[in-house]
Amino acid sequence: MPHYYALGVNKIPVGVLGASGYAGRELCALIHAHPSLCLAFATANEQRGQTVRVVGRDITFVAVEDAPLGDAELIFSALPHGTSKDWVTRAGHADARVVDLSADLRPGSGCEGVPYGLTELARKRVSEATVVANPGCYPTSILLALAPLIARGSIPPGAAITVNSASGVTGAGRAPNRELLFAEVADDYRAYAAGNGHRHLPEIRATLADWGSDVDVAFTPHLLPVARGILSTIVVPLVAPLQDVLGPWRETYAREPFIEITPEQPTLHDVIHRNVARITAVSLAGMRTPTLVIISAIDNLLKGAAGQAVQNANLMLGLPETAGLPA
Amino acid sequence: MPHYYALGVNKIPVGVLGASGYAGRELCALIHAHPSLCLAFATANEQRGQTVRVVGRDITFVAVEDAPLGDAELIFSALPHGTSKDWVTRAGHADARVVDLSADLRPGSGCEGVPYGLTELARKRVSEATVVANPGCYPTSILLALAPLIARGSIPPGAAITVNSASGVTGAGRAPNRELLFAEVADDYRAYAAGNGHRHLPEIRATLADWGSDVDVAFTPHLLPVARGILSTIVVPLVAPLQDVLGPWRETYAREPFIEITPEQPTLHDVIHRNVARITAVSLAGMRTPTLVIISAIDNLLKGAAGQAVQNANLMLGLPETAGLPA
Amino acid sequence: MPHYYALGVNKIPVGVLGASGYAGRELCALIHAHPSLCLAFATANEQRGQTVRVVGRDITFVAVEDAPLGDAELIFSALPHGTSKDWVTRAGHADARVVDLSADLRPGSGCEGVPYGLTELARKRVSEATVVANPGCYPTSILLALAPLIARGSIPPGAAITVNSASGVTGAGRAPNRELLFAEVADDYRAYAAGNGHRHLPEIRATLADWGSDVDVAFTPHLLPVARGILSTIVVPLVAPLQDVLGPWRETYAREPFIEITPEQPTLHDVIHRNVARITAVSLAGMRTPTLVIISAIDNLLKGAAGQAVQNANLMLGLPETAGLPA
Amino acid sequence: MPHYYALGVNKIPVGVLGASGYAGRELCALIHAHPSLCLAFATANEQRGQTVRVVGRDITFVAVEDAPLGDAELIFSALPHGTSKDWVTRAGHADARVVDLSADLRPGSGCEGVPYGLTELARKRVSEATVVANPGCYPTSILLALAPLIARGSIPPGAAITVNSASGVTGAGRAPNRELLFAEVADDYRAYAAGNGHRHLPEIRATLADWGSDVDVAFTPHLLPVARGILSTIVVPLVAPLQDVLGPWRETYAREPFIEITPEQPTLHDVIHRNVARITAVSLAGMRTPTLVIISAIDNLLKGAAGQAVQNANLMLGLPETAGLPA
Repeated sequence: MPHYYALGVNKIPVGVLGASGYAGRELCALIHAHPSLCLAFATANEQRGQTVRVVGRDITFVAVEDAPLGDAELIFSALPHGTSKDWVTRAGHADARVVDLSADLRPGSGCEGVPYGLTELARKRVSEATVVANPGCYPTSILLALAPLIARGSIPPGAAITVNSASGVTGAGRAPNRELLFAEVADDYRAYAAGNGHRHLPEIRATLADWGSDVDVAFTPHLLPVARGILSTIVVPLVAPLQDVLGPWRETYAREPFIEITPEQPTLHDVIHRNVARITAVSLAGMRTPTLVIISAIDNLLKGAAGQAVQNANLMLGLPETAGLPA
Repeated sequence: MPHYYALGVNKIPVGVLGASGYAGRELCALIHAHPSLCLAFATANEQRGQTVRVVGRDITFVAVEDAPLGDAELIFSALPHGTSKDWVTRAGHADARVVDLSADLRPGSGCEGVPYGLTELARKRVSEATVVANPGCYPTSILLALAPLIARGSIPPGAAITVNSASGVTGAGRAPNRELLFAEVADDYRAYAAGNGHRHLPEIRATLADWGSDVDVAFTPHLLPVARGILSTIVVPLVAPLQDVLGPWRETYAREPFIEITPEQPTLHDVIHRNVARITAVSLAGMRTPTLVIISAIDNLLKGAAGQAVQNANLMLGLPETAGLPA
Repeated sequence: MPHYYALGVNKIPVGVLGASGYAGRELCALIHAHPSLCLAFATANEQRGQTVRVVGRDITFVAVEDAPLGDAELIFSALPHGTSKDWVTRAGHADARVVDLSADLRPGSGCEGVPYGLTELARKRVSEATVVANPGCYPTSILLALAPLIARGSIPPGAAITVNSASGVTGAGRAPNRELLFAEVADDYRAYAAGNGHRHLPEIRATLADWGSDVDVAFTPHLLPVARGILSTIVVPLVAPLQDVLGPWRETYAREPFIEITPEQPTLHDVIHRNVARITAVSLAGMRTPTLVIISAIDNLLKGAAGQAVQNANLMLGLPETAGLPA
Repeated sequence: MPHYYALGVNKIPVGVLGASGYAGRELCALIHAHPSLCLAFATANEQRGQTVRVVGRDITFVAVEDAPLGDAELIFSALPHGTSKDWVTRAGHADARVVDLSADLRPGSGCEGVPYGLTELARKRVSEATVVANPGCYPTSILLALAPLIARGSIPPGAAITVNSASGVTGAGRAPNRELLFAEVADDYRAYAAGNGHRHLPEIRATLADWGSDVDVAFTPHLLPVARGILSTIVVPLVAPLQDVLGPWRETYAREPFIEITPEQPTLHDVIHRNVARITAVSLAGMRTPTLVIISAIDNLLKGAAGQAVQNANLMLGLPETAGLPA
């Protein structure tokens, strides 16, 4: 009798590699609350053997080397970038499907060919995949916002798009780091990786190229004194003014349970603790070229990481896409 | 014997209209710490007659109607926009010079002709003025950052500049407002006045036009969960790449005590409680058109309001420009 | 056919008076997520006629005068103190049961006789009641912590107990109030109502007296720069040292789903967004009289207000006590 | 010609051991702003050789082993507890006076005999000392508040005093520590070291014993989600009610430039960035024994560490006690 029947009647056992970081903990919490998944194992090398309270439940971590990969039907890898790839391979050898939350297999990483799990735009490929590259948090907020314009050819060829994103500190991980101490972050705000140097930009550019777009992207990420949430402010020149400024998004995402199109400005409060992207667009007055500003907000740990990972896992396992996800 | 001799030996009496708001309080604090100024009066209609502790000193507010305008050689008006203009006129009749912190007399307001007190770029006009329009906080952070490029003709004619600014909540004033309650602002971040609808944009555009520039500006202000500070992220296309990316700023502001040009990214921590603008610029990689991102940080209450106001007042009164200002 | 069948099949219609404050909004959110309740109406005088998004759902507020009281089987009143009492009476005339979240009917208010809904300690009375006075947030955190010692006679007669509580700002309500603006609260911490002047102290004292205790209480509430959560630190002299320091709480609350007794120090993070009280106790070293420090943490809006109100409503309506409540 | 003449004309050279922590940085900033002191060296082992911007000035750190102890007339040691003592001895061999900010030489440490630098209460001893043990931040806030009552014999012999203190996170130091990451501290509040286990309690008890008091102290420190500031809430039984509740403090601290006695509740905002203790007291209503609550607020990095250290250094060097200190 397989191990997991002890874990939950009629539940599918899944594992989490790298469970002590912010995304890993969020995954554990989602799995606990999920009607059809149960946690087969959770790894955390530094805390191996320790029992830790994660969102109201006790979890005993094992070292990644000791993870019973074969006990899980699907494995979420929230291991550090660079480390994750090998474990995706090992998980495959153990016949487990994988949702990889690291950057290792994403577009622009050099490891092409793995379906890119921007769920709403890749349902079919994700459903049939054994391995999915779960998108980065910044790319999720930006690409979901841009897709309707790219699809309609609304942006002039070769145009430049300006993206300013601001993220809560959980996006920077949970490793002890002096720069992320409370007294360093509180009351502060800063740009970082300016000059288009952020790890996520190749992912954005490669995906836009996959979509047939040749736009330039000027991307500046910023660090907010909040724990969670990302808000991207995207300025886009248009071929022609839009009659219905929200039309492209309303059409593209008409029946999406996890995408909200609103005339009001989305805020972090609107999206945190929810697996949604909330998007608006406004025409900019007084510009020679018709120009839009698009605002897109997500919870970086849910729609930008663990939530979208579970959304993808649901598809891969034949479960309802919304199962276990807070909308 | 004039009233003010009682106030401070060899000190110049100045008054503050609208002293109970954040900028007004900051003005009172700067005046108290100033070696050559003393406070002749401070008005606050709602708190008239009350003695309030402002940064360690007790101040008794009077109603604006009861302010002894003639007792002051110079008056700072931090009255609400729309209200200030009349009091600037009355102060003039009382032979007081005026630094007006409201938007009433700024470029783009319809009341042109008053010197615009972006101090570093208008020293001579300010020194000779009887009334100065003190710049808005967003325009200060943006225009000081753009001036060196405009002066050099480095931006292609008719090009579009994208400005994303984020401000602490003191920029929104101290009136009781449900949207600014702690529980509404904490853990949140949002864009507002998107679509180029912010009051400060006409000021920016009119000033750029005064400088002979015809660039378009896409401006999106954001509200940060911090008390003070503004950081503007400005993306600018260039006519040609810069050999020395910081050169234009280092040359323009070579001997400026209140402008810091740095290769590091400025942060709010670097500038709060200081009367400085701190600026960097970085070339954006991977763009068809050579493009810079400029980051400019100020304390919205000091260099963006009360500090620059005292800097202007110092010039108008023949005092050293740096007197009483924290750099 | 009664109105509410349109609202939800097999759901019990309930109303919320005073739905635009923090507790009222939390009530609406809990009712929406509740398996057996549906919202018959929600009142908010200032926002009458407006449709407001509350935790992901749209609610149209009505004026309290227009509330169809008779449509609800049970009404939650989150009206301001002093105003609520009359509406409790009117709701009774309309044959609706009432959970009153105001202070109007609590012990010490002068309106005695209404069951006091400290649920775990008053289940039978609450189950049979038509009106319940829902406890204040501070008293909930304090009285649940003290009850096991009072019941055992562990505190010397006439002794003095020292209570220091710290609350997030939502405890102070959502009315626009300059003292609660973000820039006033951030980076600050203060005591208030010192000298035993807080509204909640009579409620605590009257309840202790009802329990037969004659202890003195020195109570100092403090305002924290957080949105939600209360932590009370209670220092209690004992008749004799405890062999098992957590024993009294573990026994009293052995099977309680919403009370957690832990050897670790509870924190606000442990309890926010959950309807629980989390309590520890530690012996104080180096004291002549055996002395305990008890730490008790709750979410002021859930276990301290809306959550406990739904817990009481569940009992009054014959539903499972835990229905619809996040533990 | 001694080294320090190069450092500043007519300035006294001082050194800082352990300059990269929060207290060490604050010391460097105070020394820079001081009219009569200049920085001879600053040590930071991990950052040796690095030039770091500290409050607007560049400082190049050296390893502690390389510090030219003999170049300084006075040395501030902000080294970790346990490490500092040896360096105090070495500094003495180099003929430098020392203000030791560690706990190594404080009352209750086992190393008695060194003057305890609670400046206002130990002026003569400090002035004549070659080594001073600078008080801890919690003890400073608590002992300055208690001293007037102890001196008057106002507290019943053997009585128990309850102290609840809450501190900003800079009190916990600047070492990278997961528990002090922004996302762990924000929106949280917790007690720690409950059960009278905090390092500072022996210091408080030994000092009270030195003052001839035999009171018991129940001390619970708490961690606040703010960068700086300590507020202590102290509940004290009295022998008899006070006619003038603030009288004892007003008399004891009548001419003190750094102690403020106020009828209003002191807040962290009142004291941060200032070298003051701000104290109030209120009679508690409804208690059998006359009881006071005393509230005492300081900036933990100034009056609770670097500020008081400079105050002591000023006395030791024959400078005006207030020199270089923000009141």
